[in-house]
Order: sequence, then C-alpha cells, then structure tokens
Amino acid sequence: MNKVILLAKRPVGKPVLEDFELITEDIPQAGEGEILLKTLYVSVDPYLRGRMNDSKSYVPPFEINKPIQSGLIAEVVASNNSEFTPGDFVSGVLEWKEFQISKGKGLIKVDEKAAPLSAYLGILGMTGLTAYLGLTEIGSPKNGETLVVSGAAGAVGSVVGQIGKILGCRVIGIAGSDEKVETLKSKFKFDEAINYKTTSDIKQAIKKFCPDGVDIYFDNVGAEISDAVLANINRYARIPICGAISIYNETQPLLGPQIQPVLLVKSALMRGFIVSDFSDKFPEAIQKLSTWLKEGKLTYSETIVEGFDNIPRAFLDLFEGKNEGKMIVKI
Amino acid sequence: MNKVILLAKRPVGKPVLEDFELITEDIPQAGEGEILLKTLYVSVDPYLRGRMNDSKSYVPPFEINKPIQSGLIAEVVASNNSEFTPGDFVSGVLEWKEFQISKGKGLIKVDEKAAPLSAYLGILGMTGLTAYLGLTEIGSPKNGETLVVSGAAGAVGSVVGQIGKILGCRVIGIAGSDEKVETLKSKFKFDEAINYKTTSDIKQAIKKFCPDGVDIYFDNVGAEISDAVLANINRYARIPICGAISIYNETQPLLGPQIQPVLLVKSALMRGFIVSDFSDKFPEAIQKLSTWLKEGKLTYSETIVEGFDNIPRAFLDLFEGKNEGKMIVKI
Repeated sequence: MNKVILLAKRPVGKPVLEDFELITEDIPQAGEGEILLKTLYVSVDPYLRGRMNDSKSYVPPFEINKPIQSGLIAEVVASNNSEFTPGDFVSGVLEWKEFQISKGKGLIKVDEKAAPLSAYLGILGMTGLTAYLGLTEIGSPKNGETLVVSGAAGAVGSVVGQIGKILGCRVIGIAGSDEKVETLKSKFKFDEAINYKTTSDIKQAIKKFCPDGVDIYFDNVGAEISDAVLANINRYARIPICGAISIYNETQPLLGPQIQPVLLVKSALMRGFIVSDFSDKFPEAIQKLSTWLKEGKLTYSETIVEGFDNIPRAFLDLFEGKNEGKMIVKI
Repeated sequence: MNKVILLAKRPVGKPVLEDFELITEDIPQAGEGEILLKTLYVSVDPYLRGRMNDSKSYVPPFEINKPIQSGLIAEVVASNNSEFTPGDFVSGVLEWKEFQISKGKGLIKVDEKAAPLSAYLGILGMTGLTAYLGLTEIGSPKNGETLVVSGAAGAVGSVVGQIGKILGCRVIGIAGSDEKVETLKSKFKFDEAINYKTTSDIKQAIKKFCPDGVDIYFDNVGAEISDAVLANINRYARIPICGAISIYNETQPLLGPQIQPVLLVKSALMRGFIVSDFSDKFPEAIQKLSTWLKEGKLTYSETIVEGFDNIPRAFLDLFEGKNEGKMIVKI
C-alpha cells in the first residue's frame, strides 16, 4: 500500500497534528508518457504554513483533503517516458506520497555523485537559491558592508551569512538558543551572533556588534526582532524580506511601529520576494553555489527526521525552532 | 533693517507659532566674492518639520536660535562675484531672511521669461523633481498600470498624478476635502479621487476604484491611509515613500499592522527617498518637466501667502491641509 498525507483541516494559529491525515491507497501505475516515483527525501519548510490558509498568496492554497506538496527528492522506479530511466534521481515540487505518478514536467535530474541527494533540497536547491538570490539581487552586498541575518541558524539564514562572508561583509546573526549562536560562530563563521531569547535589549546588542550600522538586513522572521534591527540601519540600507516565521501562525494582524518613516529618513529599500521571482538567475546561482561548496567555502546543516509518518511532526517542529539548518524527512 | 526668522525652540508634536522668533538685524554687505540677495519667494514644506527635531536624518537638524532654511527664490541686488549680476534671479536652499549674503555656491540661475519665478520652487524645482524621480525611478510606471497617490492635492502629489496620466496609468488620488477631490478630477485629470475624511472604509473605496488592483502606491502620508492602500496592492507592486505628513508631529512611534508580510506575499518593493538621491537625473527630469509644462500637459496649483512675517503661519497651515498644491510665501 501507498501512504499519503492530506491536509485534513486548515490550521488556526499554530498547526497541530490533527490538521493532517495519513491515509493509504493503492500504489499507482505509470501510464503512457508517465513515470512512477518513489519518495526518498521530503523538505518541510515554514512557507508551507501560508499555503495552509485559504488566502491569496503567491501560490494557491492547499486544498482540504488533498495531499500537501513540497520539495522532494525521488527515485524513478518505472518509466514510460523516454526522458527518464529507472534509477534516475529527480527533485521537484511533489506530493506527500510514498509513491506517485508524474509526467516529468518541472522535474530536475540530480546527480548523487556530485553531492548528497538531500543537498538538492537545501544548499543546491530552493534553500541555497533563496539565500543567494535574495542576498545578491535585493541586498546587493558590497565588500566591507555589515549584514544582519535573522533566523540565522535556519536553512536559508545560515547560507545567507556564509555568502555574506564570501562577499566580504561583516556578518551578524540572530538566533534562538546558545547552541545556535555557537554554531553560527564556529561552524558558519559569522562574526557575531545574538541569542534573542536571552538578550533583553536586542536593539542595543545590534548596535554593539554593528559599530558602523547595518547596511543589509536579511529578514526571515519579522516582528520585534526586525524592529530592533531597523533601528540600526544605515542610509541606503537594503532589506530583503524572505520570511516571517514569527508571525505565520498569528490569526490577527500583528501591530508594530510604522516602518515607513524609518525607510524614508534612511532612503532604505525593503522588498519581499519568493525565489521564483529570480528564476532567470537560477543557472548562475547554482553554478556559484556548487563551486563554493566544492571549494569548501560553504557548509550546511541538516536536521534529518526518519520515516514518512513523521512528516507532519517535522513540519510542526520548525515552529519550535527544533531544526538546525534544513529540516528534511528521510523516507 | 533686515528681518530674520529663527527656530526658537524644538516643537513638541504639532509646531506652534511660539517655536519661531522674528528678529531684526542690520542688512549685511557683500564682501569679496560675495553677493547680496533679496528674498522674493519662500517655499515652506512638510519635510522641514523633521529638521526641527534633534534627531538623525538625511540632513542635519536646524539649530536653536539660528535661522531656518528652505528653498528660496531671490534677486541679486549687489555682486562682488563675476558669476552673478544685479538683477539675476536665483534659486537655492537659503535662510529665512529678507536679505542675505551668499558666495553663490549651490545657487541656480532661473529665467523669469521661461516660467513664473515661483514655479522654480514648485513644478520646476524640488516639488517637480521629487514627483518625477520618485515616480519614475522607484515606481517604474508602465502603460495600463494603476497608480494610487496619497496627499494627492499636495504640491508633490498633484504632479505625481499628472505624470502618471502622461505615462498611461490609471490614477486614483486620496485627499482630505471634497474641494480637493473635485480639483484632482477636474484640474489634474485624476481618474478618481477619495476624500479620506468622509470615507468610512478607505480599503473598500480603493478596491472599488482600482478593479485591477494597485501597481504603484506613491505614499506621501503613511499610517492608516497607507495600510488601506497596501491591502489592495498587486504582485510586484512598487511603493515610493516620499513623506509621512500624518506622522511628522507624532511624539511616539505610531503603531500599525506589520507590513513585512504584505510585502512578502506580494513580492512588493518599498523604498524611501529624498530627491537628492537621484541628483544625477536632475537635468533629464527638468527637461521632461519643462517640456510637459510648455506643451500644456502639466499644470500646478499654488497657495501664495503674502508677507515675510507670515512664513511660520504658512508652515503651520501645511499640517492643517490649508494649502492646495505648493505653499509659497511671497515677500
């Protein structure tokens, strides 16, 4: 039998296990032009929370009682499509199913000899592309500038900081535990890192660690942490808005200080994005990331959870900050 | 004797007449390389409020017991500088004095035959440059897009809307009286205009008048009006932040809904600016504005107050919305 995970109901506030349903069905058969895929790795990501709401966004919402989709690595186990051969590994946005049928559209073949398969969900996949393109296309980092990254120990944040270092920036990370702070400094070579949970005055801490002010703020979290960073930005600062994990689960709009006056007096730029906004730059970005990875200039963390049934649990753990780096479920 | 207006004390909240002091002094004499200027027109602008605070901004704060500065048109009445001849008219950022000495630095000669002198403080001066460059450099208007302008009946707003029309946009203005709404539609040819003081649901009104959503929001005011417009923006919207007149006088940071999630899901760009950010584009902008003015494609409003002593009063009236278009004091 084939296991499938559906969205059972739309979460209200923080998602719970009951919002998901595990069902079984027959393993499907590949028809004309189709391939049968066996799931190997599943990416769980904070942005999926947004698709669970019935609201307009950059992608349509998930439907109730339909399988959830996210980035997957799968193996081709049967093929009626001349472009794929059994034994091929592919990445793509696919359904939370152990086995599924595809026509091959949107799938990218990945090479298990060039990098571990799970890396294609992370540093060489959406995570790495998001970090590289958000930072370079919106943040426009210049040698000697100061970059602050929130959600710094997360999958995207840890890559953003490393790329900032490669490009010559002073890099300060903000994360939610002493272990993460230590990892940012020792493993990812951030210049400084702040544990926002134990720092009473984040604004002051940023000021201390950024004596020349903040030129780029790569924002993964929103809310109070961002207000504290914004209080320290320089003239012509650039602020890519990549995520807002701190408020994905809010049911009411969160109030905060109006930021337009800050952007005004600093001639600062703030821009939201999703990685596909820069899809024309994907080949360039993959090229850069692969090179840096081979050269040992980039490293990454993964938190690997095992077992298909544990996909929802792994997703919920993102909001508890239980992951270090990319959260991946190995089937 | 020579009249001079000083900043007597820093305003707390909304400025009052007592924040200013009128003094008299001897009329100065032009020394070596200097010119003596007689003030003809004084520009009073909302942004001056920011310089009255003792806080970091794009320009240093005014000093207590020193003359206030703003855009002026003056006549050269005596010259020991070979670049200026008595009878020349100049524009520049100068002090609130009937007569003053200058070395000529930063002054631009203006031609009274090409346009009325006061126009060089408005449509052909900082006002026009701000409107043109903020809209084109940040707003990137495209034919067929929808542009919303707040503070639309103000000096900058009324020009922004007209340029939007010239460039093929559908243009909706937001202003604070029925008279202003009428002027926007009849004189400045806005497609629609909203009186925010008599409209109970601005968000809904924007939705009605912008059936295809908002592609560009030129923001002069901030706060609730902006929140209502942001609720209607399209994917890839651009939002030049030009001013925040509604909050210049606030003594505490104003709270509002966090806007980062809106920018995120819409891949929208928000950028603060001051006209000097684009000083390399001034010649191009003046060229365009002059041409459109000559062709009758641009028109403008002025509210002219008479008398040097009335400069502070005219400035205060800006915050009561008593001006239509550019507020100018004629000496």
